[in-house]
Amino acid sequence: MRRDCSILVLSGPNLNLLGTREPEVYGSHTLAGIEERVKAAAAELGAEVRCRQSNHEGELVEALHEARGWADGAVFNPGAFTHYSLALRDAVSAAGLPTVEVHLSNVHGRESFRRRSVIAPVCLGQIAGFGPDSYVLGLRAVVGRVRAEDD
Amino acid sequence: MRRDCSILVLSGPNLNLLGTREPEVYGSHTLAGIEERVKAAAAELGAEVRCRQSNHEGELVEALHEARGWADGAVFNPGAFTHYSLALRDAVSAAGLPTVEVHLSNVHGRESFRRRSVIAPVCLGQIAGFGPDSYVLGLRAVVGRVRAEDD
Amino acid sequence: MRRDCSILVLSGPNLNLLGTREPEVYGSHTLAGIEERVKAAAAELGAEVRCRQSNHEGELVEALHEARGWADGAVFNPGAFTHYSLALRDAVSAAGLPTVEVHLSNVHGRESFRRRSVIAPVCLGQIAGFGPDSYVLGLRAVVGRVRAEDD
Amino acid sequence: MRRDCSILVLSGPNLNLLGTREPEVYGSHTLAGIEERVKAAAAELGAEVRCRQSNHEGELVEALHEARGWADGAVFNPGAFTHYSLALRDAVSAAGLPTVEVHLSNVHGRESFRRRSVIAPVCLGQIAGFGPDSYVLGLRAVVGRVRAEDD
Amino acid sequence: MRRDCSILVLSGPNLNLLGTREPEVYGSHTLAGIEERVKAAAAELGAEVRCRQSNHEGELVEALHEARGWADGAVFNPGAFTHYSLALRDAVSAAGLPTVEVHLSNVHGRESFRRRSVIAPVCLGQIAGFGPDSYVLGLRAVVGRVRAEDD
Amino acid sequence: MRRDCSILVLSGPNLNLLGTREPEVYGSHTLAGIEERVKAAAAELGAEVRCRQSNHEGELVEALHEARGWADGAVFNPGAFTHYSLALRDAVSAAGLPTVEVHLSNVHGRESFRRRSVIAPVCLGQIAGFGPDSYVLGLRAVVGRVRAEDD
Amino acid sequence: MRRDCSILVLSGPNLNLLGTREPEVYGSHTLAGIEERVKAAAAELGAEVRCRQSNHEGELVEALHEARGWADGAVFNPGAFTHYSLALRDAVSAAGLPTVEVHLSNVHGRESFRRRSVIAPVCLGQIAGFGPDSYVLGLRAVVGRVRAEDD
Amino acid sequence: MRRDCSILVLSGPNLNLLGTREPEVYGSHTLAGIEERVKAAAAELGAEVRCRQSNHEGELVEALHEARGWADGAVFNPGAFTHYSLALRDAVSAAGLPTVEVHLSNVHGRESFRRRSVIAPVCLGQIAGFGPDSYVLGLRAVVGRVRAEDD
Amino acid sequence: MRRDCSILVLSGPNLNLLGTREPEVYGSHTLAGIEERVKAAAAELGAEVRCRQSNHEGELVEALHEARGWADGAVFNPGAFTHYSLALRDAVSAAGLPTVEVHLSNVHGRESFRRRSVIAPVCLGQIAGFGPDSYVLGLRAVVGRVRAEDD
Amino acid sequence: MRRDCSILVLSGPNLNLLGTREPEVYGSHTLAGIEERVKAAAAELGAEVRCRQSNHEGELVEALHEARGWADGAVFNPGAFTHYSLALRDAVSAAGLPTVEVHLSNVHGRESFRRRSVIAPVCLGQIAGFGPDSYVLGLRAVVGRVRAEDD
Amino acid sequence: MRRDCSILVLSGPNLNLLGTREPEVYGSHTLAGIEERVKAAAAELGAEVRCRQSNHEGELVEALHEARGWADGAVFNPGAFTHYSLALRDAVSAAGLPTVEVHLSNVHGRESFRRRSVIAPVCLGQIAGFGPDSYVLGLRAVVGRVRAEDD
Amino acid sequence: MRRDCSILVLSGPNLNLLGTREPEVYGSHTLAGIEERVKAAAAELGAEVRCRQSNHEGELVEALHEARGWADGAVFNPGAFTHYSLALRDAVSAAGLPTVEVHLSNVHGRESFRRRSVIAPVCLGQIAGFGPDSYVLGLRAVVGRVRAEDD
Repeated sequence: MRRDCSILVLSGPNLNLLGTREPEVYGSHTLAGIEERVKAAAAELGAEVRCRQSNHEGELVEALHEARGWADGAVFNPGAFTHYSLALRDAVSAAGLPTVEVHLSNVHGRESFRRRSVIAPVCLGQIAGFGPDSYVLGLRAVVGRVRAEDD
Repeated sequence: MRRDCSILVLSGPNLNLLGTREPEVYGSHTLAGIEERVKAAAAELGAEVRCRQSNHEGELVEALHEARGWADGAVFNPGAFTHYSLALRDAVSAAGLPTVEVHLSNVHGRESFRRRSVIAPVCLGQIAGFGPDSYVLGLRAVVGRVRAEDD
Repeated sequence: MRRDCSILVLSGPNLNLLGTREPEVYGSHTLAGIEERVKAAAAELGAEVRCRQSNHEGELVEALHEARGWADGAVFNPGAFTHYSLALRDAVSAAGLPTVEVHLSNVHGRESFRRRSVIAPVCLGQIAGFGPDSYVLGLRAVVGRVRAEDD
Repeated sequence: MRRDCSILVLSGPNLNLLGTREPEVYGSHTLAGIEERVKAAAAELGAEVRCRQSNHEGELVEALHEARGWADGAVFNPGAFTHYSLALRDAVSAAGLPTVEVHLSNVHGRESFRRRSVIAPVCLGQIAGFGPDSYVLGLRAVVGRVRAEDD
Repeated sequence: MRRDCSILVLSGPNLNLLGTREPEVYGSHTLAGIEERVKAAAAELGAEVRCRQSNHEGELVEALHEARGWADGAVFNPGAFTHYSLALRDAVSAAGLPTVEVHLSNVHGRESFRRRSVIAPVCLGQIAGFGPDSYVLGLRAVVGRVRAEDD
Repeated sequence: MRRDCSILVLSGPNLNLLGTREPEVYGSHTLAGIEERVKAAAAELGAEVRCRQSNHEGELVEALHEARGWADGAVFNPGAFTHYSLALRDAVSAAGLPTVEVHLSNVHGRESFRRRSVIAPVCLGQIAGFGPDSYVLGLRAVVGRVRAEDD
Repeated sequence: MRRDCSILVLSGPNLNLLGTREPEVYGSHTLAGIEERVKAAAAELGAEVRCRQSNHEGELVEALHEARGWADGAVFNPGAFTHYSLALRDAVSAAGLPTVEVHLSNVHGRESFRRRSVIAPVCLGQIAGFGPDSYVLGLRAVVGRVRAEDD
Repeated sequence: MRRDCSILVLSGPNLNLLGTREPEVYGSHTLAGIEERVKAAAAELGAEVRCRQSNHEGELVEALHEARGWADGAVFNPGAFTHYSLALRDAVSAAGLPTVEVHLSNVHGRESFRRRSVIAPVCLGQIAGFGPDSYVLGLRAVVGRVRAEDD
Repeated sequence: MRRDCSILVLSGPNLNLLGTREPEVYGSHTLAGIEERVKAAAAELGAEVRCRQSNHEGELVEALHEARGWADGAVFNPGAFTHYSLALRDAVSAAGLPTVEVHLSNVHGRESFRRRSVIAPVCLGQIAGFGPDSYVLGLRAVVGRVRAEDD
Repeated sequence: MRRDCSILVLSGPNLNLLGTREPEVYGSHTLAGIEERVKAAAAELGAEVRCRQSNHEGELVEALHEARGWADGAVFNPGAFTHYSLALRDAVSAAGLPTVEVHLSNVHGRESFRRRSVIAPVCLGQIAGFGPDSYVLGLRAVVGRVRAEDD
Repeated sequence: MRRDCSILVLSGPNLNLLGTREPEVYGSHTLAGIEERVKAAAAELGAEVRCRQSNHEGELVEALHEARGWADGAVFNPGAFTHYSLALRDAVSAAGLPTVEVHLSNVHGRESFRRRSVIAPVCLGQIAGFGPDSYVLGLRAVVGRVRAEDD
Repeated sequence: MRRDCSILVLSGPNLNLLGTREPEVYGSHTLAGIEERVKAAAAELGAEVRCRQSNHEGELVEALHEARGWADGAVFNPGAFTHYSLALRDAVSAAGLPTVEVHLSNVHGRESFRRRSVIAPVCLGQIAGFGPDSYVLGLRAVVGRVRAEDD
């Protein structure tokens, strides 16, 4: 039988405005809506998620630190911090949890500065371009990895 | 009821050697094994996949051209062509199918030349780092997009 | 008759030390003194300003978010965040308010890293080099634009 | 009582076509219209302006040289020369007048080559993005500086 | 007789996890242990230290601001902020205290992005590579400088 | 009387899709239609053309090799290979035929990677931006050169 | 019947010396000779050309401005201005005439600085490498475009 | 007694034209002649070679794959693919055979793009500049290595 | 006996202001004073000089063209054009006179953009850093070369 | 009881002039004075030092080679060689002694070329900015490391 | 009969430590051992070699100068000087002897700075990656070239 | 009456071979011949010169150090060290003598790496391109400067 699996779903700056902000880029879903979809998918997979959003780099760092105490993995959308926050890169390394970097939009097809991630090199991998599905696919990926390691 | 959905699963150079080649980077799965998993996942989703591998850039270009006649989308692992084949970039644009770029390994954490994709900017998005699961996640992503557009 | 017009005047890190810090670069005005001048100029223009300073990137992000509820525009001196805070760039875009980037010193004539702004591309424009007058000129510019759009 | 203050308002290549050229970028104002606005603003400030436009780099160099005989400052829109005319940079230095670089459009948000100014480092500062108001704001800035130095 | 000398010992993001995180890079010492060693060394030198750690860039900025009221110098390990926080660079300049940048590991021998410090140019100097001794050596260096200036 | 003159007209990857692919960039002409126009122009000039298209770099290399046996010159649209195929550059050099590089679209006004040609340096010259006329102009150019050399 | 069509043929700095200057690069044709050939070709096409040469950037800018009053298109050899005159780039945009950039020599095969054109991105296209034929081919290209737009 | 040793001698694009192409760079030897010399040298060393040439990247990839079944090492002249074919780089890695990259001409003394090899980093080493002797020296080098490993 | 020798002494933009402009960089000599010194030195050498200054790139181009009719060489201080005027580079080549580039200040020790000359590569050489003596040394150098060629 | 510990103190080019050269950068201490301080500090630590200076790269290489016979570690100020001498980098690696790179001035705050060290990556760490104290701190650091390894 | 042939075998800095230094990179052979192998190979080829090693750039320069008097060619391992010694590049050019650059390790697969040779462009070619065999292969290459030129 | 004036004439690596080495670049003069010309010119100017050449960077450093005791200035041809020897740059600074950098050939028109001088920024200026006359012109320049400072 599958054991329980707890996942941190962490979202970075400006994502609290989703659904109201530049819908031609980010779509019309709110963050609450996305988190609902992730929770539903988690239930289907027999996993539990806790969702957190912050516009503060330091709070995101600490959310990753704290997750060491209870989580088995993380789905992380660092927003604009993706491209420069070496503090978050170090926090992902330090937390030591398998982490998937996700993006709603296809960062590879936007401004050139959005193609570089300083965080992805210390993650399992990156999923970008599928709107809210990026989160759900990220959840599947990290749960799959956690359970594979349990085997 | 969900309509049928046909997906091209296309793999580029050297992927025919999977499972025998540098397992510390690419894992121990063969390409045939991965394609089996993708077909099983497709069946579960009520979709059909056709798998193709080639070491020849021109054949990959033409596989994308031909898919315009029958496919609703594509999952594409361009292998090393990811980083320089502008011909494949143009072929993805020309084919006009929703396409997901996938990679077995986390290209963002390897040699710096592997971080740049010339193809991803014309895809829906990119999924990298989850071994065979990258293909399965890519399939889910493209099927999701195709069915969303049908609605 | 001119309608009311409300403007956020937002100042970033270290600007709380103005007047005490490196006066050969930044002059001898305190931030309070500058804000007084801006308020006086606003009164003259029939506009209202609310001033905010923070050394925290996240608080600046949220100040821009909140201003969506009450402000018609913003005058923003991002301080050193000008050169790397993509989170603030996204916050300006997300807030959707006409925003003017201002600098006390002529950033174009200082260290080369100070010539690059990651935020100005999503602003109306940039005003740099006029000490406290940069804020007053910025206020005039944004009020002018807001009223022009009302016509 | 405020003393007289004479300002050169200098415009570079192609600005003679304003109002007829690419209005989606430069607006529908003619240069004559802008100069009228600047003169009106000058009158309000008790200052005098003389306006000059040329498509010839050498004539702009010499306009700056000649202004040493009569002007207290300059408002200068170097147009495309902004990005490469080191001769104009040296002319601004040589003239020794407080000079404000102005641009109608937000050069920071256009093609990347338009973000670099070789002239701004030797000016008081730069104002960009406010259409004809860029000139008026520039006038205010330079008059303010001239009078401050007189005190 | 030597006068009293007060030093701020400031540590940046993720350093609260020291001793539990990647010991092959950072060693097995906890931050508390390091701070004990620094305090012992300070006692020996007849100096006083106050220790502070934060994962928040804004709090580090403000810790430097506040130290202007009581400290004679600072030992600062900016962690990952070393490489991009121009806000902290400006805060060190603004605080005006003699500051030594310290690193536990030899940043010059790690990933290339770790070789660039945006903060060191406004410090007295940099000490890197000696584990907890980097803090102690930094304390000695700044105390030496402070007392030399008193002479 | 003018002697006969035989010209290879060679087109690279994805050009077989012309007329069906991104007509806003490449126009609505099919490759067959363009080749008809080139043949008509050749007849008018008293020259003969043989047309070839391939999506395979190796076949294009060999088409150039084989043309050494019968052709007096070549009109070559390398498509996306323009920007990276050093093998085709060497093949043009090795074939030793006067060759004109042609492009349907104005490559100088598109993505920056399309501005660089690794092949043009070993051609007579380059013609870009005139749709099917680029081929016809290229034919005229190479026929003119061949006949000039015969004189 | 074809309507009249008037074309500006504009040549930049040092081209007045053609035929006497570095013939191994530029050939032995004088500019007058080239203009004769262009006029003959124009007559054949039922078009009219007016030829102009200047060594002064400002005069070239103004020649383009004035052509808005009478010309349907332009053939422009900017000489060395090709590589840096953003003023001419803006003049071509501002004039709004379909313009073809031409070069006598194959700029893609010479010094690397000659491969970059700042003007071509705002032209219809570029023709380089065919000696005086570059002008004739350019004339054909622009007349073809003008007449196509008339249809 | 020395055991048998089988070596793949693989040549890339345009090398089939050797002896007829640009003899001032590549000399007057044909590929057949070079292969004869390599076979003679192999006989002397008690080794066996099989020679293969292709202008197709995909065929070269597959030649390396197939050699895994019979060869002990490879001498590889990738021609122009040296500088961009990451697919061949991956094929050399995947084949896992000790491989020597050889070049007829001194690539370090030619155009700057020829100095960069994307393949050499995964080879034993590189030999360049000695005409046909480069192949012979490469054969000696790889045979020496294979036999050393057998000891 | 030494034959007559005529030299053009050409000075570029802003040099008409010498002696009044930034004396800490350019010294207190006027251009007229420098030209007197050059004429005196020429008399001593039995040579004749004609002096010319212009702020217009086109006039400098044409001064070089015209000198082909009477001069044996040139001493040229291109001022700020040194760093970008490819039109002047081509004019020096086209004029075909032995030319020495001179600078009053040591351009190698100033802003980095002043270290690059686009004109020096087509001159005999460059002399920089000796104030008015740079002109005199340049005259000696070009006269020496001209007479050496006569021998 | 602490065992003996022998340290090479090695100084590079131009350091023999210390105290007489640019005192505003390097202070007024002579090298002999600094070496006295280092010896005194060594005595305090129960260690022995041998001091060596050379302006010859080759002699510094050999001083490091020879130290393998008697030293336990090294304090090395490579002077200007810091920035380009790969020969000294290899010599430090080859000697295999724990080595600390020291600088009198804060190299991170001077000309940009002085920020790059090619030697530090193969050292324990770097200490810069503390005048003669840099040597003493370096001695402490290396003695601490040597004794820690003995434990 | 083969004439005599004399070759300089020159080794640069740190190579005197071979066999004792980083054997995982450079192997366990001493330089004396390598030189013995080269002498034996030379005897077999009927050639004579003289071996020289120095850690001093100037001595290596002079060894190349002196070899003009007696040698027919050179095998040169410049060690770390490979990457920056333009003096040695000029010395190789000045000596005018056919020279082969050799390296024990595969410099193309090590640190990126080791991939650039400033000396190889003026050599016959480069051989890297085969341990002591690199010297022997280099000897064969240069002797082959010398004798080919004698024919 | 003019006082005595002593000048060091210093030449760097490979210049001892002048006259025998690449005469198409460096001419047919020997260094001895050049030094004779310099001595004759010095006699004419009432100055004394001492000439020195070395292929050793360290000896050139020390020649500059020693010249502090007797020389009033220096003429220095650093040869290839021009482009990378920061040690010589520091030596020129440390010696504190007015120094002129000279080159026989026009370094601005050769390989691009020869255009950069790391030494010229700390010299009075640079003279390049006039063969032996570069030395003589350099002597005149430095003597002129020394005597001007005496006035």
